[in-house]
Amino acid sequence: MAAPIDFYFDFSSPYGYLASTQIDALAGRHGREVAWRPFMLGAAFKTTGQSPLTQQPLRGPYHLRDFARSARLLKVPFTLPDPFPFASLAAARAFYWLVDRESAQAKALARDVYHAAYGEGRDVRSIEAVASIGQRLGLDPAALREAVEQPAIKDRLKAETESAIARGVFGSPFLFVDGEPFWGHDRFYQVERWLATGGF
Amino acid sequence: MAAPIDFYFDFSSPYGYLASTQIDALAGRHGREVAWRPFMLGAAFKTTGQSPLTQQPLRGPYHLRDFARSARLLKVPFTLPDPFPFASLAAARAFYWLVDRESAQAKALARDVYHAAYGEGRDVRSIEAVASIGQRLGLDPAALREAVEQPAIKDRLKAETESAIARGVFGSPFLFVDGEPFWGHDRFYQVERWLATGGF
Repeated sequence: MAAPIDFYFDFSSPYGYLASTQIDALAGRHGREVAWRPFMLGAAFKTTGQSPLTQQPLRGPYHLRDFARSARLLKVPFTLPDPFPFASLAAARAFYWLVDRESAQAKALARDVYHAAYGEGRDVRSIEAVASIGQRLGLDPAALREAVEQPAIKDRLKAETESAIARGVFGSPFLFVDGEPFWGHDRFYQVERWLATGGF
Repeated sequence: MAAPIDFYFDFSSPYGYLASTQIDALAGRHGREVAWRPFMLGAAFKTTGQSPLTQQPLRGPYHLRDFARSARLLKVPFTLPDPFPFASLAAARAFYWLVDRESAQAKALARDVYHAAYGEGRDVRSIEAVASIGQRLGLDPAALREAVEQPAIKDRLKAETESAIARGVFGSPFLFVDGEPFWGHDRFYQVERWLATGGF
Protein backbone atom coordinates (compact mmCIF):
# COMPACT_ATOMS: atom_id res chain seq x y z
CA MET A 1 0.00 0.00 0.00
CA ALA A 2 1.19 3.51 -0.85
CA ALA A 3 2.64 5.69 1.93
CA PRO A 4 0.32 8.17 3.62
CA ILE A 5 0.21 11.79 2.49
CA ASP A 6 1.96 14.03 5.03
CA PHE A 7 -0.27 16.95 5.99
CA TYR A 8 1.67 19.64 7.87
CA PHE A 9 -0.35 22.44 9.46
CA ASP A 10 -0.40 24.94 12.31
CA PHE A 11 -3.62 25.19 14.33
CA SER A 12 -3.41 28.97 14.04
CA SER A 13 -3.45 28.86 10.22
CA PRO A 14 -6.77 29.71 8.50
CA TYR A 15 -5.66 28.03 5.27
CA GLY A 16 -4.67 24.99 7.35
CA TYR A 17 -8.25 24.92 8.64
CA LEU A 18 -9.64 25.06 5.10
CA ALA A 19 -7.31 22.21 4.11
CA SER A 20 -8.35 20.16 7.15
CA THR A 21 -11.94 20.11 5.90
CA GLN A 22 -10.86 18.62 2.53
CA ILE A 23 -7.69 16.57 2.87
CA ASP A 24 -9.02 13.19 4.03
CA ALA A 25 -11.78 13.12 1.39
CA LEU A 26 -9.26 14.11 -1.28
CA ALA A 27 -6.85 11.37 -0.25
CA GLY A 28 -9.68 8.87 0.13
CA ARG A 29 -10.77 9.37 -3.49
CA HIS A 30 -7.39 7.92 -4.43
CA GLY A 31 -7.24 5.19 -1.77
CA ARG A 32 -4.70 7.07 0.31
CA GLU A 33 -4.33 7.74 4.04
CA VAL A 34 -3.25 11.07 5.57
CA ALA A 35 -0.72 11.56 8.38
CA TRP A 36 -1.68 14.81 10.15
CA ARG A 37 1.37 16.66 11.46
CA PRO A 38 0.86 19.89 13.40
CA PHE A 39 3.99 22.02 13.68
CA MET A 40 4.96 25.48 14.91
CA LEU A 41 4.73 27.77 11.88
CA GLY A 42 6.43 30.58 13.83
CA ALA A 43 9.65 28.54 13.90
CA ALA A 44 9.57 28.31 10.09
CA PHE A 45 8.94 32.07 9.89
CA LYS A 46 12.23 32.58 11.77
CA THR A 47 13.97 30.79 8.89
CA THR A 48 12.09 32.47 6.04
CA GLY A 49 11.75 35.95 7.54
CA GLN A 50 7.97 35.85 7.04
CA SER A 51 5.39 37.07 9.56
CA PRO A 52 1.67 36.34 10.09
CA LEU A 53 -0.20 37.41 6.96
CA THR A 54 -2.68 39.69 8.68
CA GLN A 55 0.15 41.78 10.13
CA GLN A 56 1.52 42.68 6.68
CA PRO A 57 0.67 45.89 4.79
CA LEU A 58 -1.56 45.27 1.73
CA ARG A 59 -1.29 41.48 2.15
CA GLY A 60 -3.18 41.53 5.46
CA PRO A 61 -6.46 43.04 4.23
CA TYR A 62 -6.37 40.90 1.09
CA HIS A 63 -5.92 37.67 2.98
CA LEU A 64 -8.70 38.45 5.45
CA ARG A 65 -10.97 38.73 2.45
CA ASP A 66 -9.51 35.63 0.80
CA PHE A 67 -9.90 33.45 3.93
CA ALA A 68 -13.64 34.14 4.02
CA ARG A 69 -14.13 33.95 0.25
CA SER A 70 -12.25 30.63 -0.02
CA ALA A 71 -14.34 29.23 2.85
CA ARG A 72 -17.57 30.28 1.12
CA LEU A 73 -16.50 28.47 -2.03
CA LEU A 74 -15.80 25.30 0.00
CA LYS A 75 -19.10 25.78 1.84
CA VAL A 76 -17.44 25.60 5.26
CA PRO A 77 -18.11 28.08 8.08
CA PHE A 78 -15.46 30.71 8.73
CA THR A 79 -14.98 33.20 11.57
CA LEU A 80 -11.63 34.69 12.47
CA PRO A 81 -10.98 34.19 16.20
CA ASP A 82 -9.84 37.07 18.37
CA PRO A 83 -6.93 37.24 19.06
CA PHE A 84 -5.47 36.25 15.74
CA PRO A 85 -2.85 34.94 15.19
CA PHE A 86 -2.85 32.86 18.36
CA ALA A 87 -0.54 30.46 20.20
CA SER A 88 -1.35 26.90 19.14
CA LEU A 89 1.13 25.10 21.37
CA ALA A 90 -1.44 23.42 23.65
CA ALA A 91 -3.45 21.94 20.80
CA ALA A 92 -0.34 20.71 18.97
CA ARG A 93 1.07 19.07 22.09
CA ALA A 94 -2.29 17.43 22.89
CA PHE A 95 -2.37 16.07 19.34
CA TYR A 96 1.07 14.43 19.64
CA TRP A 97 0.21 12.97 23.05
CA LEU A 98 -2.81 11.28 21.47
CA VAL A 99 -1.49 10.28 18.08
CA ASP A 100 0.56 7.23 19.09
CA ARG A 101 -2.22 6.03 21.41
CA GLU A 102 -5.21 6.46 19.15
CA SER A 103 -4.54 8.13 15.84
CA ALA A 104 -8.23 8.40 14.88
CA GLN A 105 -8.93 10.27 18.14
CA ALA A 106 -5.99 12.59 17.51
CA LYS A 107 -7.36 13.46 14.09
CA ALA A 108 -10.85 13.98 15.52
CA LEU A 109 -9.41 16.30 18.17
CA ALA A 110 -7.51 18.26 15.51
CA ARG A 111 -10.66 18.64 13.39
CA ASP A 112 -12.68 19.77 16.41
CA VAL A 113 -10.04 22.28 17.53
CA TYR A 114 -9.91 23.72 14.03
CA HIS A 115 -13.70 23.86 13.87
CA ALA A 116 -13.91 25.62 17.26
CA ALA A 117 -11.27 28.17 16.23
CA TYR A 118 -12.34 28.95 12.66
CA GLY A 119 -15.82 27.49 12.32
CA GLU A 120 -16.98 29.18 15.53
CA GLY A 121 -14.28 31.82 16.14
CA ARG A 122 -13.55 30.49 19.65
CA ASP A 123 -10.37 31.05 21.64
CA VAL A 124 -8.54 27.68 21.68
CA ARG A 125 -5.19 28.83 23.03
CA SER A 126 -5.38 27.34 26.52
CA ILE A 127 -5.06 23.69 27.46
CA GLU A 128 -8.39 24.13 29.27
CA ALA A 129 -10.06 25.02 25.98
CA VAL A 130 -8.42 22.07 24.22
CA ALA A 131 -9.29 19.69 27.09
CA SER A 132 -12.91 20.80 26.97
CA ILE A 133 -13.05 20.06 23.23
CA GLY A 134 -11.41 16.68 23.91
CA GLN A 135 -13.90 15.86 26.66
CA ARG A 136 -16.73 15.80 24.12
CA LEU A 137 -14.71 13.12 22.27
CA GLY A 138 -14.49 11.06 25.48
CA LEU A 139 -10.95 12.12 26.38
CA ASP A 140 -10.12 12.60 30.05
CA PRO A 141 -9.45 16.34 30.54
CA ALA A 142 -7.15 15.79 33.53
CA ALA A 143 -5.01 13.34 31.55
CA LEU A 144 -4.80 15.80 28.65
CA ARG A 145 -3.82 18.69 30.94
CA GLU A 146 -1.11 16.56 32.50
CA ALA A 147 0.12 15.21 29.17
CA VAL A 148 0.95 18.57 27.61
CA GLU A 149 3.30 19.35 30.49
CA GLN A 150 5.38 16.22 29.92
CA PRO A 151 8.91 16.99 28.65
CA ALA A 152 8.63 14.08 26.20
CA ILE A 153 5.58 15.68 24.58
CA LYS A 154 7.21 19.10 24.46
CA ASP A 155 10.28 17.51 22.85
CA ARG A 156 8.10 15.62 20.38
CA LEU A 157 6.52 18.82 19.04
CA LYS A 158 9.95 20.47 18.84
CA ALA A 159 11.36 17.50 16.92
CA GLU A 160 8.36 17.40 14.55
CA THR A 161 8.76 21.11 13.86
CA GLU A 162 12.51 20.80 13.23
CA SER A 163 11.97 17.82 10.98
CA ALA A 164 9.28 19.71 9.04
CA ILE A 165 11.59 22.67 8.44
CA ALA A 166 14.43 20.33 7.48
CA ARG A 167 12.12 18.85 4.81
CA GLY A 168 11.45 22.35 3.47
CA VAL A 169 8.10 23.10 5.12
CA PHE A 170 7.62 26.88 5.42
CA GLY A 171 3.85 27.37 5.39
CA SER A 172 0.53 25.87 6.38
CA PRO A 173 -0.94 23.73 4.93
CA PHE A 174 2.01 21.91 3.38
CA LEU A 175 1.74 18.42 1.89
CA PHE A 176 4.15 15.76 0.72
CA VAL A 177 2.72 13.26 -1.75
CA ASP A 178 5.29 10.53 -2.38
CA GLY A 179 8.04 13.09 -1.72
CA GLU A 180 6.53 15.86 -3.86
CA PRO A 181 5.94 19.09 -1.86
CA PHE A 182 2.73 21.12 -2.24
CA TRP A 183 2.17 24.37 -0.33
CA GLY A 184 -1.30 25.80 0.21
CA HIS A 185 -4.91 24.65 0.00
CA ASP A 186 -4.81 26.30 -3.42
CA ARG A 187 -2.52 23.51 -4.65
CA PHE A 188 -5.12 20.83 -3.89
CA TYR A 189 -6.19 20.77 -7.55
CA GLN A 190 -2.58 19.84 -8.37
CA VAL A 191 -2.52 17.22 -5.59
CA GLU A 192 -5.73 15.70 -6.96
CA ARG A 193 -4.17 15.46 -10.41
CA TRP A 194 -0.89 14.13 -9.02
CA LEU A 195 -2.69 11.34 -7.16
CA ALA A 196 -4.84 10.49 -10.19
CA THR A 197 -1.94 10.31 -12.63
CA GLY A 198 1.11 9.46 -10.50
CA GLY A 199 2.77 12.80 -11.30
CA PHE A 200 2.97 15.23 -14.18
CA MET B 1 -21.17 45.76 -21.47
CA ALA B 2 -19.37 44.74 -18.28
CA ALA B 3 -16.10 46.48 -17.41
CA PRO B 4 -12.86 44.74 -18.40
CA ILE B 5 -10.98 42.59 -15.92
CA ASP B 6 -7.85 44.38 -14.68
CA PHE B 7 -4.81 42.12 -15.03
CA TYR B 8 -1.82 43.49 -13.11
CA PHE B 9 1.53 41.79 -13.67
CA ASP B 10 5.27 42.34 -13.68
CA PHE B 11 7.20 41.02 -16.70
CA SER B 12 9.72 39.49 -14.30
CA SER B 13 7.06 37.37 -12.55
CA PRO B 14 6.92 33.66 -13.50
CA TYR B 15 3.37 33.35 -12.15
CA GLY B 16 2.45 36.44 -14.15
CA TYR B 17 3.72 34.60 -17.24
CA LEU B 18 1.58 31.56 -16.42
CA ALA B 19 -1.44 33.84 -15.95
CA SER B 20 -0.73 35.62 -19.25
CA THR B 21 -1.19 32.33 -21.12
CA GLN B 22 -4.68 31.83 -19.61
CA ILE B 23 -6.32 35.14 -18.79
CA ASP B 24 -7.83 36.17 -22.14
CA ALA B 25 -9.33 32.74 -22.76
CA LEU B 26 -10.73 32.66 -19.22
CA ALA B 27 -12.31 36.10 -19.61
CA GLY B 28 -13.53 35.25 -23.11
CA ARG B 29 -15.48 32.24 -21.83
CA HIS B 30 -17.58 34.77 -19.91
CA GLY B 31 -17.76 37.44 -22.61
CA ARG B 32 -15.29 39.71 -20.83
CA GLU B 33 -12.33 41.77 -22.00
CA VAL B 34 -9.01 42.08 -20.13
CA ALA B 35 -7.05 45.28 -19.49
CA TRP B 36 -3.39 44.28 -19.18
CA ARG B 37 -1.51 46.49 -16.71
CA PRO B 38 2.20 45.88 -16.17
CA PHE B 39 3.57 47.46 -13.01
CA MET B 40 6.79 47.46 -10.99
CA LEU B 41 6.43 44.68 -8.42
CA GLY B 42 9.59 45.88 -6.64
CA ALA B 43 7.76 49.07 -5.63
CA ALA B 44 5.03 46.99 -3.99
CA PHE B 45 7.69 44.91 -2.21
CA LYS B 46 8.94 48.13 -0.60
CA THR B 47 5.49 48.52 0.96
CA THR B 48 5.00 44.89 1.99
CA GLY B 49 8.58 44.06 2.97
CA GLN B 50 8.61 41.09 0.59
CA SER B 51 11.50 40.12 -1.68
CA PRO B 52 11.79 38.03 -4.85
CA LEU B 53 10.66 34.48 -4.03
CA THR B 54 13.77 32.74 -5.25
CA GLN B 55 15.93 34.76 -2.85
CA GLN B 56 14.09 33.46 0.22
CA PRO B 57 15.24 30.48 2.32
CA LEU B 58 12.97 27.40 1.94
CA ARG B 59 10.48 29.36 -0.18
CA GLY B 60 13.00 29.81 -3.03
CA PRO B 61 13.64 26.14 -3.82
CA TYR B 62 9.94 25.31 -3.43
CA HIS B 63 8.82 27.99 -5.85
CA LEU B 64 11.41 27.05 -8.47
CA ARG B 65 9.83 23.60 -8.42
CA ASP B 66 6.30 25.00 -8.38
CA PHE B 67 6.89 27.34 -11.36
CA ALA B 68 7.91 24.40 -13.53
CA ARG B 69 5.26 22.02 -12.18
CA SER B 70 2.45 24.56 -12.63
CA ALA B 71 3.63 25.22 -16.20
CA ARG B 72 3.61 21.47 -16.99
CA LEU B 73 0.03 21.22 -15.77
CA LEU B 74 -0.97 24.13 -18.01
CA LYS B 75 1.04 22.58 -20.87
CA VAL B 76 3.01 25.78 -21.48
CA PRO B 77 6.81 25.86 -21.91
CA PHE B 78 8.83 27.09 -18.94
CA THR B 79 12.51 28.02 -18.61
CA LEU B 80 13.79 30.36 -15.93
CA PRO B 81 15.88 33.10 -17.56
CA ASP B 82 19.32 33.99 -16.22
CA PRO B 83 19.56 36.42 -14.47
CA PHE B 84 16.40 36.01 -12.43
CA PRO B 85 14.75 38.13 -11.13
CA PHE B 86 15.40 40.75 -13.82
CA ALA B 87 14.64 44.42 -14.48
CA SER B 88 11.44 44.66 -16.50
CA LEU B 89 11.34 48.44 -16.89
CA ALA B 90 11.98 48.54 -20.66
CA ALA B 91 9.20 46.06 -21.47
CA ALA B 92 6.70 47.79 -19.18
CA ARG B 93 7.45 51.23 -20.66
CA ALA B 94 7.22 49.89 -24.20
CA PHE B 95 3.83 48.41 -23.33
CA TYR B 96 2.43 51.73 -22.08
CA TRP B 97 3.80 53.58 -25.09
CA LEU B 98 1.86 51.20 -27.33
CA VAL B 99 -1.32 50.66 -25.37
CA ASP B 100 -3.08 53.93 -26.17
CA ARG B 101 -2.05 53.70 -29.83
CA GLU B 102 -2.90 50.08 -30.54
CA SER B 103 -4.03 48.06 -27.57
CA ALA B 104 -4.04 44.73 -29.47
CA GLN B 105 -0.40 45.30 -30.46
CA ALA B 106 0.50 46.15 -26.86
CA LYS B 107 -1.01 42.89 -25.65
CA ALA B 108 0.75 40.95 -28.43
CA LEU B 109 4.05 42.54 -27.40
CA ALA B 110 3.44 41.64 -23.75
CA ARG B 111 2.66 38.04 -24.67
CA ASP B 112 5.76 37.78 -26.84
CA VAL B 113 8.03 39.34 -24.19
CA TYR B 114 6.69 36.88 -21.61
CA HIS B 115 7.14 33.99 -24.02
CA ALA B 116 10.72 35.03 -24.82
CA ALA B 117 11.56 35.35 -21.10
CA TYR B 118 9.84 32.25 -19.68
CA GLY B 119 8.96 30.13 -22.70
CA GLU B 120 12.51 30.39 -24.09
CA GLY B 121 14.52 31.63 -21.10
CA ARG B 122 15.84 34.65 -23.01
CA ASP B 123 17.22 37.86 -21.50
CA VAL B 124 14.57 40.56 -22.16
CA ARG B 125 15.94 43.29 -19.89
CA SER B 126 17.24 45.68 -22.52
CA ILE B 127 15.18 47.91 -24.79
CA GLU B 128 17.14 46.32 -27.68
CA ALA B 129 15.77 42.92 -26.72
CA VAL B 130 12.22 44.31 -26.42
CA ALA B 131 12.55 46.23 -29.71
CA SER B 132 13.71 43.10 -31.49
CA ILE B 133 10.65 41.21 -30.20
CA GLY B 134 8.47 44.14 -31.30
CA GLN B 135 10.03 44.19 -34.75
CA ARG B 136 8.61 40.76 -35.51
CA LEU B 137 5.17 42.25 -34.75
CA GLY B 138 5.81 45.02 -37.28
CA LEU B 139 6.78 47.68 -34.74
CA ASP B 140 9.51 50.14 -35.66
CA PRO B 141 12.47 49.40 -33.34
CA ALA B 142 13.82 52.97 -33.53
CA ALA B 143 10.43 54.39 -32.48
CA LEU B 144 10.25 51.93 -29.60
CA ARG B 145 13.77 52.75 -28.41
CA GLU B 146 12.94 56.45 -28.51
CA ALA B 147 9.58 56.04 -26.83
CA VAL B 148 10.85 54.42 -23.64
CA GLU B 149 13.09 57.44 -23.02
CA GLN B 150 10.16 59.88 -23.08
CA PRO B 151 9.46 61.43 -19.66
CA ALA B 152 5.71 61.02 -20.29
CA ILE B 153 6.14 57.25 -20.67
CA LYS B 154 8.37 57.00 -17.61
CA ASP B 155 5.75 58.95 -15.64
CA ARG B 156 2.97 56.78 -16.99
CA LEU B 157 4.56 53.60 -15.63
CA LYS B 158 5.21 55.30 -12.30
CA ALA B 159 1.61 56.45 -12.09
CA GLU B 160 0.28 52.99 -13.04
CA THR B 161 2.46 51.41 -10.36
CA GLU B 162 1.36 53.89 -7.69
CA SER B 163 -2.27 53.44 -8.65
CA ALA B 164 -1.90 49.64 -8.49
CA ILE B 165 -0.42 49.79 -4.98
CA ALA B 166 -3.12 52.27 -3.90
CA ARG B 167 -5.71 49.69 -5.03
CA GLY B 168 -4.01 47.04 -2.87
CA VAL B 169 -1.95 45.23 -5.51
CA PHE B 170 1.06 43.54 -3.88
CA GLY B 171 1.84 40.58 -6.12
CA SER B 172 1.82 39.31 -9.69
CA PRO B 173 -0.55 38.31 -11.20
CA PHE B 174 -3.25 40.32 -9.46
CA LEU B 175 -6.77 40.71 -10.89
CA PHE B 176 -9.79 42.86 -10.19
CA VAL B 177 -13.10 41.46 -11.37
CA ASP B 178 -15.82 44.07 -10.86
CA GLY B 179 -13.84 45.40 -7.87
CA GLU B 180 -13.10 41.99 -6.33
CA PRO B 181 -9.33 41.37 -5.88
CA PHE B 182 -7.72 38.02 -6.73
CA TRP B 183 -4.02 37.37 -6.22
CA GLY B 184 -2.20 34.58 -8.02
CA HIS B 185 -2.75 32.31 -11.00
CA ASP B 186 -3.89 29.80 -8.38
CA ARG B 187 -7.02 31.90 -7.79
CA PHE B 188 -8.12 31.51 -11.42
CA TYR B 189 -10.51 28.71 -10.43
CA GLN B 190 -12.19 31.26 -8.12
CA VAL B 191 -12.20 33.92 -10.86
CA GLU B 192 -13.84 31.43 -13.23
CA ARG B 193 -16.56 30.72 -10.65
CA TRP B 194 -16.96 34.41 -9.84
CA LEU B 195 -17.50 35.27 -13.50
CA ALA B 196 -19.92 32.38 -14.00
CA THR B 197 -22.05 33.19 -10.96
CA GLY B 198 -21.59 36.92 -10.41
CA GLY B 199 -19.93 36.35 -7.02
CA PHE B 200 -20.12 33.90 -4.15
